[in-house]
Amino acid sequence: MYRSHTCGELRDSHINTDVVLSGWVHKTRDKGFVVWVDLRDRYGITQLVFDQDRTSAELLENARNLGREFVIQVKGSVIERASKNDKIPTGNIEVLVKELTVLNTSKTPPFTIENDTDGGEDLRMKYRYLDIRRNPVKNNLIFRSKVTMEVRKYLSQQGFIEVETPYLIKSTPEGARDFVVPSRMNEGQFYALPQSPQTFKQLLMVGGMDKYFQIVKCFRDEDLRADRQPEFTQIDCEMAFVEQEDILNVFEGLTRYLLKEINGVEVDTFPRITYDEAMEKYGNDKPDIRFGMEFGELNEVAQHKDFNVFNNAELVVGIAVPGGNAYTRKEIDQLIDWVKRPQVGALGMVYCRCNEDGSYKSSVDKFYDQEDLAKWAKVTGANPGDLICVLSGETHKTRTQLSALRMELAQQLGLRKSNEFAPLWVVDFPLLELDEETGHYHAMHHPFTSPKPGQLELLDSDPAAVRANAYDLVLNGNEIGGGSIRIHDKETQSIMFKHLGFTPEEAKAQFGFLMDAFQYGAPPHGGIAFGLDRLVAILGGQETIRDFIAFPKNNSGRDVMIDAPAPIDNAQLEELHLKLYL
Amino acid sequence: MYRSHTCGELRDSHINTDVVLSGWVHKTRDKGFVVWVDLRDRYGITQLVFDQDRTSAELLENARNLGREFVIQVKGSVIERASKNDKIPTGNIEVLVKELTVLNTSKTPPFTIENDTDGGEDLRMKYRYLDIRRNPVKNNLIFRSKVTMEVRKYLSQQGFIEVETPYLIKSTPEGARDFVVPSRMNEGQFYALPQSPQTFKQLLMVGGMDKYFQIVKCFRDEDLRADRQPEFTQIDCEMAFVEQEDILNVFEGLTRYLLKEINGVEVDTFPRITYDEAMEKYGNDKPDIRFGMEFGELNEVAQHKDFNVFNNAELVVGIAVPGGNAYTRKEIDQLIDWVKRPQVGALGMVYCRCNEDGSYKSSVDKFYDQEDLAKWAKVTGANPGDLICVLSGETHKTRTQLSALRMELAQQLGLRKSNEFAPLWVVDFPLLELDEETGHYHAMHHPFTSPKPGQLELLDSDPAAVRANAYDLVLNGNEIGGGSIRIHDKETQSIMFKHLGFTPEEAKAQFGFLMDAFQYGAPPHGGIAFGLDRLVAILGGQETIRDFIAFPKNNSGRDVMIDAPAPIDNAQLEELHLKLYL
Repeated sequence: MYRSHTCGELRDSHINTDVVLSGWVHKTRDKGFVVWVDLRDRYGITQLVFDQDRTSAELLENARNLGREFVIQVKGSVIERASKNDKIPTGNIEVLVKELTVLNTSKTPPFTIENDTDGGEDLRMKYRYLDIRRNPVKNNLIFRSKVTMEVRKYLSQQGFIEVETPYLIKSTPEGARDFVVPSRMNEGQFYALPQSPQTFKQLLMVGGMDKYFQIVKCFRDEDLRADRQPEFTQIDCEMAFVEQEDILNVFEGLTRYLLKEINGVEVDTFPRITYDEAMEKYGNDKPDIRFGMEFGELNEVAQHKDFNVFNNAELVVGIAVPGGNAYTRKEIDQLIDWVKRPQVGALGMVYCRCNEDGSYKSSVDKFYDQEDLAKWAKVTGANPGDLICVLSGETHKTRTQLSALRMELAQQLGLRKSNEFAPLWVVDFPLLELDEETGHYHAMHHPFTSPKPGQLELLDSDPAAVRANAYDLVLNGNEIGGGSIRIHDKETQSIMFKHLGFTPEEAKAQFGFLMDAFQYGAPPHGGIAFGLDRLVAILGGQETIRDFIAFPKNNSGRDVMIDAPAPIDNAQLEELHLKLYL
Repeated sequence: MYRSHTCGELRDSHINTDVVLSGWVHKTRDKGFVVWVDLRDRYGITQLVFDQDRTSAELLENARNLGREFVIQVKGSVIERASKNDKIPTGNIEVLVKELTVLNTSKTPPFTIENDTDGGEDLRMKYRYLDIRRNPVKNNLIFRSKVTMEVRKYLSQQGFIEVETPYLIKSTPEGARDFVVPSRMNEGQFYALPQSPQTFKQLLMVGGMDKYFQIVKCFRDEDLRADRQPEFTQIDCEMAFVEQEDILNVFEGLTRYLLKEINGVEVDTFPRITYDEAMEKYGNDKPDIRFGMEFGELNEVAQHKDFNVFNNAELVVGIAVPGGNAYTRKEIDQLIDWVKRPQVGALGMVYCRCNEDGSYKSSVDKFYDQEDLAKWAKVTGANPGDLICVLSGETHKTRTQLSALRMELAQQLGLRKSNEFAPLWVVDFPLLELDEETGHYHAMHHPFTSPKPGQLELLDSDPAAVRANAYDLVLNGNEIGGGSIRIHDKETQSIMFKHLGFTPEEAKAQFGFLMDAFQYGAPPHGGIAFGLDRLVAILGGQETIRDFIAFPKNNSGRDVMIDAPAPIDNAQLEELHLKLYL
């Protein structure tokens, strides 16, 4: 038996008990006559004491020679601590060691195993097993485990069945790029790893499973943007005999349950806004509504003056920055530079100070008088002491730019509080999205999403106007879930495929099994999928997903710890009927 | 709202309630003046009634025209049923329909959606979504979901953390063949899909996670034997600061918990036998101990007579078949033919009838007198009325043959009862196994398994004699779990790799990260993995795993429903820097 207790367990009540502990040497303090060792495991830290009065010289010497991260086992008795440490739960006691066994030594770790480590990202990833010893990473992984347990608990209680769908499936040209897996037994053929279990969960609905969920790995071979992973985890759900309303209710319930159980936060009924409204008010289909700063459209009040920049613009739109009049001229110039960065892409920014005395001072005073500016203030909801920032140009671009500015300002003003949670539903997404490069429409959600009733006809005349039974759950400016009511009849699905540019032959080759299934009594159904990595990070009050993943990959899709991917030998290639072609 | 209740929900107490139901038309009975429809969903069947007195002519006609597996919605009121059906929970009521909506039609399904379907395996797999509508398959999937929930519940309560390990890892030449995944971003390099998360869970132990588990898909590109799948699911576990005893206790606890919660069966402390004992007593390292028929070694009592077949044999071994004296001569000849089949491979079988009067009649009476045969009976534990079956030859082969016969006889005699559960631990497995083809030793469990204390030295002199800290959990003749205490120091791991034929360079290239990790304070650790598919099938009282998997693959590794694997297009191949070579 390696231990009688963990390093986080001993309290006053254990004083005078004989114990056996095992763990890592976190820290050693050598005062000559006495040596203290902080012994660490997953559960906490316990102070060990060796001193010359009560400890043999040999044992004291051995304690003195312990290195950081050595793995040791000690036998001893729990005693009261002279100087208590109320920062840790075991701080009232220490263990007077009678026997010490080194279970394993350790080289000096390449970074400190502390909450604030001196290790950079690269080093931490290479030695991820050491990084995981650090509380922040360890606690994130434990937190993630807890979240998934609660998700399963809630969905099971609601009658959902967790069904495992296959990982070795078929490649489809649609959507993102698949990872493929050559088949040895089927020469020249490939499996694909699922980008999501979409078609399988729909087939489970055709199969009468009624309520399905799965916490499942998905795969996308995309060029990795920051904070994206080639493999990611999804809470994947589907229900039969439901309308959009039913799905929103169930998964609002799940989200509310998690916020309560995990964060101890009670939230009201989630607001719902349409995609169009979200774009108008926030310039963004995943608005962060922890703070206001809603867009005010200024076309009516700012055009038809002599300021041609605005007159020629499709949209003039502003936001009121609370307390923003406190910005210095230099700070405002920095904001202007910020919106002009290529990543944002605005040509400039007009601003208007709202002075405490009710007067206004704008960067375009030449064209606008106090009465004009008072109208700006009214439309943007600016109060004395605020700053109005105005952008103009093509509608969609300008909204996107102002959204970026809104988020940047909120960040600067500390309005994006990680312990505040503001969920909302964005509904009525467009069915199709124009790919500006190819001029083709593609499915905004995916090709299985149903159009709003009666809008199928619009697909020919005005495809961009068609709205879908599609919805996103947004939390603190992040899309954490998205789904739709699906098409469940072969005809509608065929029309969709046609509009997405599939020939009937292509549609049959790729999705014939699904369209076949639709002919054997497919029920109305719909679902949603949550991005677990992101959800957990947000519930954990953090921005990046990487430290909620035990062994993440870097931006080149590499696991630097195990050094993968890697070449394979020729025999293996030959068995797969493949040749490299570099 | 598609339904107010499910089809399994309505009882007497609902009589006179207005309800809305949705589901599949399971069956229609048309008596002219009245039409009954069995409406089915996941939760049950509810009888709908349409009759000419209470239903409009149009509605009656519509009901009459409903086809099997049509998806319909009905509104109506719950009424008491004239002739009750006590076979189903809703059998006291029926729903008098006032409104009928066909939500979707259905072609006639290719097989009947009944417990005993007329569909063959191939058809069922091609239309798996219809197969899943059948109770046996549907219930298996629900059962599986329940088992995994209970596993997670138990392990969480024991302090285990579920950690997701990566699916895109590195190929290792050791063990079974990997599925590989070409990397687009890292030219000419490949990921591999994990055969198990073995090294990652060990790294989590190095990382101080202390108790890890995961229910996880694993992949093996092997030629598929019956009832094997290229992707399968494992309950994967690892613990730090443990000895074998700790692990056996925790996972005996898990197994006992599952038997209790899932099957309502209380089992005693699991017997433990060594690998050597299992081979001696049952000729098998996964003995089915729901019944006796233990081997009796007859060398002492059957050799040194004039029967040269036995005299020249390394091993003479028999079993007593309870009541086997009832076999006719013809049936015994069939048994002899059975053991001579190439799959079993015995050259012949000697038998001895134990007559009710205490006399014996053997097939080798020429060489053995009654006293000799009485000794056979004593050694094999045969009673009057039994039949003793004896095989002889090379030890290992003969044991394997007799084991096969033992299982066949138990099957014939109905001793393998699916509702009886007899778990046991098999411990002290050999560390290495000789590959007779290559003459090399390979790891019996895997290269990370630790030898018994003090036996490392034996590796040079007598590798086959080295025993490992390795154990299997066996249930009803199936290995449902296996694990070991791992090596946790670099030196021992290097020695192991050397004995497995790795050069130091190869070991470093493949497992350098693990050996590095061992130098930074790796704790003693060990673990186990359960085959979930098999475990669920056994708990479900069934033999084959396929119907506990939603979308299984056939013996060629194909998903015949979606028709995967499939060719991919040249552009995709080019992006991956690959050429087909057929």
